[in-house]
Amino acid sequence: MQAALGLAARGLGRVWPNPAVGCLIVRDGRIVGRGRTADGGRPHAETVALSQAGGMARGATAYVTLEPCAHHGVTPPCADALIETGVARVVVALRDPDPRVDGGGVARLREAGIEVTEGVCEPEARALQSGFLTRIRNGRPALTLKLATTLDGRIATATGESQWITGEAARRHVHARRAAHDAILVGAGTARADDPALTVRGFGDVPQPIRVVLSRSLDLALELKLVRTARDIPTWFLHSSGDPAPFEAAGVRCHSILHTDAGGVDVLEALAILGREGLTRVYCEGGGQLAASLLAAGLVDRLELYSAGAVIGAEGRPSIGPMGLNLLARAPRMELLTSRAIGADLYTVWESSSEPTTP
Amino acid sequence: MQAALGLAARGLGRVWPNPAVGCLIVRDGRIVGRGRTADGGRPHAETVALSQAGGMARGATAYVTLEPCAHHGVTPPCADALIETGVARVVVALRDPDPRVDGGGVARLREAGIEVTEGVCEPEARALQSGFLTRIRNGRPALTLKLATTLDGRIATATGESQWITGEAARRHVHARRAAHDAILVGAGTARADDPALTVRGFGDVPQPIRVVLSRSLDLALELKLVRTARDIPTWFLHSSGDPAPFEAAGVRCHSILHTDAGGVDVLEALAILGREGLTRVYCEGGGQLAASLLAAGLVDRLELYSAGAVIGAEGRPSIGPMGLNLLARAPRMELLTSRAIGADLYTVWESSSEPTTP
Repeated sequence: MQAALGLAARGLGRVWPNPAVGCLIVRDGRIVGRGRTADGGRPHAETVALSQAGGMARGATAYVTLEPCAHHGVTPPCADALIETGVARVVVALRDPDPRVDGGGVARLREAGIEVTEGVCEPEARALQSGFLTRIRNGRPALTLKLATTLDGRIATATGESQWITGEAARRHVHARRAAHDAILVGAGTARADDPALTVRGFGDVPQPIRVVLSRSLDLALELKLVRTARDIPTWFLHSSGDPAPFEAAGVRCHSILHTDAGGVDVLEALAILGREGLTRVYCEGGGQLAASLLAAGLVDRLELYSAGAVIGAEGRPSIGPMGLNLLARAPRMELLTSRAIGADLYTVWESSSEPTTP
Repeated sequence: MQAALGLAARGLGRVWPNPAVGCLIVRDGRIVGRGRTADGGRPHAETVALSQAGGMARGATAYVTLEPCAHHGVTPPCADALIETGVARVVVALRDPDPRVDGGGVARLREAGIEVTEGVCEPEARALQSGFLTRIRNGRPALTLKLATTLDGRIATATGESQWITGEAARRHVHARRAAHDAILVGAGTARADDPALTVRGFGDVPQPIRVVLSRSLDLALELKLVRTARDIPTWFLHSSGDPAPFEAAGVRCHSILHTDAGGVDVLEALAILGREGLTRVYCEGGGQLAASLLAAGLVDRLELYSAGAVIGAEGRPSIGPMGLNLLARAPRMELLTSRAIGADLYTVWESSSEPTTP
């Protein structure tokens, strides 16, 4: 199952709106087929693995990281494919909570006389599927907030200088993390100030995540890199006012958001739109105001922090903007998942604790 | 030598103005004597170990973490004691750069026909002796800056609430770290706002570090815990104006600083005063303005950061005050030494890189 999970992980950021699944077919102790959900979400992992196994699948054991589907979608149900090829046993890490499946795949396999074992490596599978699960459960993608700060939580000097806070190794790591997400999200202020490309670079010809900009009034220049390259790399603007026509003419897809809050557009509605579009994993790269809004709304599932061994002092720009927080007990809390050095910087991953303590 | 270094480390924070030295006497593969510099700095490690070894020292090997002294100070030279007891061989981790020793101890041993090996575990000994070495080299104690912050570098909410940012385990760790330093340093603002005790608690009857407050004008209340307990726990105020008489009447020692800078008293002069008083290891616990002054002056040798998995946002109080820094290239740089979880918090240690890059 560990190997199947490893296969599945390779699909992260490439398979939305489908879950990133891995499948291994084992017969007589030998792996005769392996597959993961293909880029774009089809074919499914089971289809790939079974077609590789061919006749060897008869009597074999299939290890699948997510319950095989039982419904006719764009592709026929994987449960049926496993039954037809004569697989003897199916080991499943995690039930698929999608209401169209939700135990139906396992039931269908068992009805066909196939032995099914559930819950193997379930915690790992759950972590891997956090994006898909969040979308099913909450109707929005899982959100990773990336911060690259000094030891005092600054992302730039007062004059805006920020280019080399973290080192080369950390920046390369960020590109790998971008590649593992369906979309990269920034606020309009960051798009204006930094004119970022928000592409995955240095990993060859990989699928590029969608670039999403939250902008209340579409006060963005047509000269921005994001706009100029929108025909090559999918680029979405989420806005509540302003004229989308010139951006759409440049190839940007504009989504209209109905509600606004004090800081800009309503972040919950924005993420719900991304969820409806099928996105499961979103990587937010700032700026401070958007990060503050997401944190205050309890929408940050995972925080990935690159800490550089430098201090800038209180005039520097803060990583998190104003949150309107007065009581410490209401501060969003995260749990430390892992920490390690990347080059000269420290990389730490924090996960959202259940709920902020509300007094 | 590792065992001798372990012994030596137990003296940190207790032996100033002397270095924390460890000594092991080994004969025929058996440890016959062990000692460390005693609390208060005397007797020296060699004296303790030799007296424990008694007649067994003859023909034995002595492992010492710092070159034995060769000068008559308050105690007779340890080199002579090693010679007189008939030790055959002395293994030294690090030469003592004190101009009164500086190779003289080793030379005296060799003249007496004792075999001397130098440089064993020298890097570890150098790290252990950083306080003593900094005082010899720079005329000031080594400075550790402690910060306990949220992930966005805040130490309190806008209203000043800060009590429980980090957890119980981290706070306990802070008390252990206090105990390993000669003095605890805070700015006047922190003394006023938090009215801290700055004592080592929870470790039984241990020597208390000296409590040092930097206050430009002595604008401090006699009701502060630091003042009220000054007769029991040594408390020093460093000031450039104001009337020291009422504080001295309460048992506080007041040192006058001649120079001031924009933020308050001159921090370099303050540390020089502490160095002249014999302090080798100072633990600064803030606040943000003092931390900024020390960092800007390049006086922070080690930064110990406790990061809580929480965010407060930009209204929160910053861990580091204004530093007047415009160019990122001038930001003080630190190198990551270690990181680990303490309770729910992350503890990271950063050491000053050689020199800040000045363009």
